[in-house]
Amino acid sequence: MSKNKVKIGLIGFGTIGTGVVKLIQGNARGLKARLNADLVLARIADLDLKRKREVKVNPQILTTRVEDILADPEIDIVVELMGGVEPARRFVLEAIRRGKSVVTANKALLATAGDEIFRAAEKNGVSVGFEASVGGGIPVIRALREAYAGDKIRSLLGIINGTSNYILSKMTDEGSRFEHVLKRAQEKGYAEADPTLDVEGIDAAHKLAILITLAFGVRIKLNQIYTEGITRISPLDVEFAREFGYRIKLLAIAKDQGPKGIEARVHPTLIRADSLLADVKDVFNAIYVVGEALGPNLLYGRGAGMMPTATAVLSDLISIARQKLSGVNTGIPGRSLPDTQIKDVRVRDIKEILMGYYLRFSVVDRPGVLSRITGVLGRHNISIASFLQRGRMAGAKVPIFLLTHEALEKNLRAAVAVIDRMDVVRDPTCFIRIEKNLE
Amino acid sequence: MSKNKVKIGLIGFGTIGTGVVKLIQGNARGLKARLNADLVLARIADLDLKRKREVKVNPQILTTRVEDILADPEIDIVVELMGGVEPARRFVLEAIRRGKSVVTANKALLATAGDEIFRAAEKNGVSVGFEASVGGGIPVIRALREAYAGDKIRSLLGIINGTSNYILSKMTDEGSRFEHVLKRAQEKGYAEADPTLDVEGIDAAHKLAILITLAFGVRIKLNQIYTEGITRISPLDVEFAREFGYRIKLLAIAKDQGPKGIEARVHPTLIRADSLLADVKDVFNAIYVVGEALGPNLLYGRGAGMMPTATAVLSDLISIARQKLSGVNTGIPGRSLPDTQIKDVRVRDIKEILMGYYLRFSVVDRPGVLSRITGVLGRHNISIASFLQRGRMAGAKVPIFLLTHEALEKNLRAAVAVIDRMDVVRDPTCFIRIEKNLE
Repeated sequence: MSKNKVKIGLIGFGTIGTGVVKLIQGNARGLKARLNADLVLARIADLDLKRKREVKVNPQILTTRVEDILADPEIDIVVELMGGVEPARRFVLEAIRRGKSVVTANKALLATAGDEIFRAAEKNGVSVGFEASVGGGIPVIRALREAYAGDKIRSLLGIINGTSNYILSKMTDEGSRFEHVLKRAQEKGYAEADPTLDVEGIDAAHKLAILITLAFGVRIKLNQIYTEGITRISPLDVEFAREFGYRIKLLAIAKDQGPKGIEARVHPTLIRADSLLADVKDVFNAIYVVGEALGPNLLYGRGAGMMPTATAVLSDLISIARQKLSGVNTGIPGRSLPDTQIKDVRVRDIKEILMGYYLRFSVVDRPGVLSRITGVLGRHNISIASFLQRGRMAGAKVPIFLLTHEALEKNLRAAVAVIDRMDVVRDPTCFIRIEKNLE
Repeated sequence: MSKNKVKIGLIGFGTIGTGVVKLIQGNARGLKARLNADLVLARIADLDLKRKREVKVNPQILTTRVEDILADPEIDIVVELMGGVEPARRFVLEAIRRGKSVVTANKALLATAGDEIFRAAEKNGVSVGFEASVGGGIPVIRALREAYAGDKIRSLLGIINGTSNYILSKMTDEGSRFEHVLKRAQEKGYAEADPTLDVEGIDAAHKLAILITLAFGVRIKLNQIYTEGITRISPLDVEFAREFGYRIKLLAIAKDQGPKGIEARVHPTLIRADSLLADVKDVFNAIYVVGEALGPNLLYGRGAGMMPTATAVLSDLISIARQKLSGVNTGIPGRSLPDTQIKDVRVRDIKEILMGYYLRFSVVDRPGVLSRITGVLGRHNISIASFLQRGRMAGAKVPIFLLTHEALEKNLRAAVAVIDRMDVVRDPTCFIRIEKNLE
């Protein structure tokens, strides 16, 4: 490789790809100053070369064949921005096999095939950068990999899906229904036509899997993460959470519980209205990390979008280019630990976790109902912290709202199953977990 | 150097030094897993070896002579935690000259002798880590150096002095006077016996100088940073800032204004009560960075203290140890740019900057006073955004509170000078700048 340039091949010329090209073109001088070499965009592969894009590139570097990038011995770093697991996985592995480093924003790929990719990278002495895979331009990967490396991470709580956070923020600010806000989010381009990955918590689970490996040095499979989305949250829940002094957020939560194992879960969560995460609104993301020595750290910013995500790709490109230029392989391709040091995880069953709960019952307004419900809760070792009822109408269906003290999830579920079979209960009970360990 | 260990010499066995020793001892296994080598604390130098400390070390590694560290060819990295400019500067330069990398938490040293140190490091092919110099365990140095490296930073606003933030937080929560809270902070160990560096904004200016070089690639001298402390903030100001929907924070502010130059200033600032920085309380720190492509990022955490700061030292130790073990010199010892690429700064005179202002006048309560004051402001091109007066008492001294729209600081100062000469004005007018560019 020539020592005065680093050549890049880009796979996927969509939104983020366009942002990356913009940054490389716009900051060429700054990049050269940092690297004392040129970052050259040598080749771009995309199936659709006709589409109008916000940047101009030399048409000769465009190709529809990824092979033109993979087979080019002059290309040092492959940037994979096509998304999805296949054929991205195949292209990334092939690039690595041919001695190229890889930068990717593909959380689905890393969450499902990360082990295979990092192992291949280690074997071939190349780097894999993935700062753009979680939290857009928020430097959370770098922080976990390097900044907190001398500490033991205790817990990590993140708002890492912008679409869900946008929907919950609007439901909170406007009292709107989920379906209504989702439709608006789709019109604005904040949500996909098929929003399942976002609103069912799957995208957040992909990202949490990546963060867990970095934070705790363990490998985790997607199906080990308890995942629940926001589709069943009603405006009533948002309103009464607020009355109790809380906000509802889709949180990705990971905690190291020592010998008991790791907690790994994504679900709607009540957090105190005066906590910093409660102020993370719209499409913004934030990751709250607590280290044994560090205490709490919060990293906040835009979690998606063309330009913020492109800055994360660039930061990886610069770091890897520096390594290439100095002729180094640091031996750790992208994670904080070599593959042999990453342990198998023991994940705690959510049923064994102690949490507080928000409960919404839908009951017939009749004397004695509350006492029957609290009786069932009591028999399941669940005690009440607060209670609210609004709008009385004898004989009609009314909601009752409760907050519980900490209880075992299996007890909570058992109690709810009993309550939902009562004659005075009209609709299935809604319960939302509460997270207290936040400043 | 042996490839299975990296030897460290520690200069200064005080609070942070003790934290570093704790982390190295407590996380030895995790560190070895990350490095595939041992991080060995080979030598500790301190003038006071008798003092009782929270950690036990082998007495044979203790010395009162720094020379024992500097002259030891086996020591790879020197950790300087003694503080102050001299003799720390001499020790650091000598370590570099002898081919050792350096990790330091010393902001005063870097703000005053940074250029000399980084130039020497470049010349000698060694690294200088200084994550611990700003924001304790908050990874702001790493973020500016690496994560945002592909972007252009537009502005940076930080709460980077924990002592001042503690005092202002308590004044806000309790309505207490500055002197009263300072005394309590001293008792709690949050403020030094001589608090000048903290409460006069000098410590924040040291840190801002370091951040400015990283963010904008320019060299700046301490006397180019406009610096004003919090000693003149009264409980009245805190209270009426709140009435207007603001909080008062000591902010370190840097903005790239293109050809006009860089804004670089530390002063008490009104920020909107609903901005994230307003929620940064007590001894916590936060840095709000806005990048052209990135948009806003906020990094938050404990800005000081034994263990959080020690994690930052460790993160540098790990990064530099990895370089040493792979036999690399990345060519850039610690800043994001080689010395030759760092430009001289053009700093904007504060008198030429447009800002909104909070003003507190102390006047005799008499008809026509407000009109005379607003008349002077109007003649200086300063227009009023809001106005408050509480407690009327004809002929007595009363405060008047105003918020202005954006005005040139030189006009504001000229107007205040005229107003302070009026017969109806009793005490010098207090003015505090307003920062609006925050989410």
